[in-house]
Amino acid sequence: MIQTIEPIGIIHSCFKELFGIPRQPGLARAARGWVEFHPPFDRAEAFNGLEGFSHIWITFLFHKSLDNEMSLTVRPPRKEGKRMGVFATRAPNRPNQIGQSVVALERIENSDGKIALHVKGLDLIEGTPVIDIKPYVPYVDAISDANGGFAHDAPVQRLQVDFSDKASQQVDEFEAAYPELRQLINDILQYDPRPIYVRKLANKKRFGFFIYDLDVKVELISDEKLMVNELRST
Amino acid sequence: MIQTIEPIGIIHSCFKELFGIPRQPGLARAARGWVEFHPPFDRAEAFNGLEGFSHIWITFLFHKSLDNEMSLTVRPPRKEGKRMGVFATRAPNRPNQIGQSVVALERIENSDGKIALHVKGLDLIEGTPVIDIKPYVPYVDAISDANGGFAHDAPVQRLQVDFSDKASQQVDEFEAAYPELRQLINDILQYDPRPIYVRKLANKKRFGFFIYDLDVKVELISDEKLMVNELRST
Repeated sequence: MIQTIEPIGIIHSCFKELFGIPRQPGLARAARGWVEFHPPFDRAEAFNGLEGFSHIWITFLFHKSLDNEMSLTVRPPRKEGKRMGVFATRAPNRPNQIGQSVVALERIENSDGKIALHVKGLDLIEGTPVIDIKPYVPYVDAISDANGGFAHDAPVQRLQVDFSDKASQQVDEFEAAYPELRQLINDILQYDPRPIYVRKLANKKRFGFFIYDLDVKVELISDEKLMVNELRST
Repeated sequence: MIQTIEPIGIIHSCFKELFGIPRQPGLARAARGWVEFHPPFDRAEAFNGLEGFSHIWITFLFHKSLDNEMSLTVRPPRKEGKRMGVFATRAPNRPNQIGQSVVALERIENSDGKIALHVKGLDLIEGTPVIDIKPYVPYVDAISDANGGFAHDAPVQRLQVDFSDKASQQVDEFEAAYPELRQLINDILQYDPRPIYVRKLANKKRFGFFIYDLDVKVELISDEKLMVNELRST
């Protein structure tokens, strides 16, 4: 049995490229985005009752992995190169390439009868195809005594993040357009978005990443400290 | 963009028909089943690391609804006939007809290199096509302070369930083959599986439902009490 699925909408995200995106939803609580729906799924009646829920599940396609060859094993970041079974991970490159992310529902926008869902705690890239929206139901979904195996503990927030005077002033200015921008940059950098092999390069002290239309320039001050030097509008 | 998906496996469940299936996973903790995988997804390497997790997400197709006409609104059982937006519910008849259920992972069976996952707390019918398995990651998925809107509270366990002497003795005998059978029957009946309109029929005092290969015969004693009269092997 082969089934066809068709996106009902598309993600608009503060994340425009893969580098810098948190590994899981909720890790960067200030990471904002919204879901645009294709007709007829944009109609208000399809969302009647959703306004009472604080969180939603976004079911989506890992569209950046669609051309990859399917593999039964993957190398998750937290296992530092060790191969794990694909069904023991949430890796993007997986059979059917379907993902699910729980995010906070910040606001339901109704613009002339066309619905958009504004969300926080996003871990999805701009342009991600959305194939379903479901309410988060705590009495079913929140299993507080579950054991999360090798992924039980949240990633370590290993880095202190400082802002140069220049960057700090720029952040203040940009926050009018991008709420909680300082928090967002801090959330992304504290988990150290650099791949393991880059972290090991002793002479690689500077890197950048994109959020919204900003190029964030970062410098490694020590093994425990990063400095945001500058933001550039692209 | 249209994407094709292909099942990686199939559900084997104590539930052989829709009537009697709990509305959500976890409501009947003794509801057992297992996932059979199609090659090559049945190979042990694809599950390496899953043994540490207590719960898994099963992503599946609502195959019993595939021929239904798509609707943007549905009538969820707990709203007693009121129309709600399909994206505010987890109703089976939905765009792309993809479901997700979190279940307890009881045991990973490796039979000559072919994997089967044995699960508890199932809410899926025999034959459900499985399209993905993901680990339940508590620090991401367990949002204890989430607000569940109109579905925030678990359904009321409204009925007391008694067993006749005959049924009780039969349950004891069948439990060798079907562990926790008494608990399972109790879990299903205490939520009252009957549709609202049937509950209102004053002269309809008897009904039956199927689990495993058993036909469970039930009698309504009062508005608060049911009696399991007999089990018949089918």
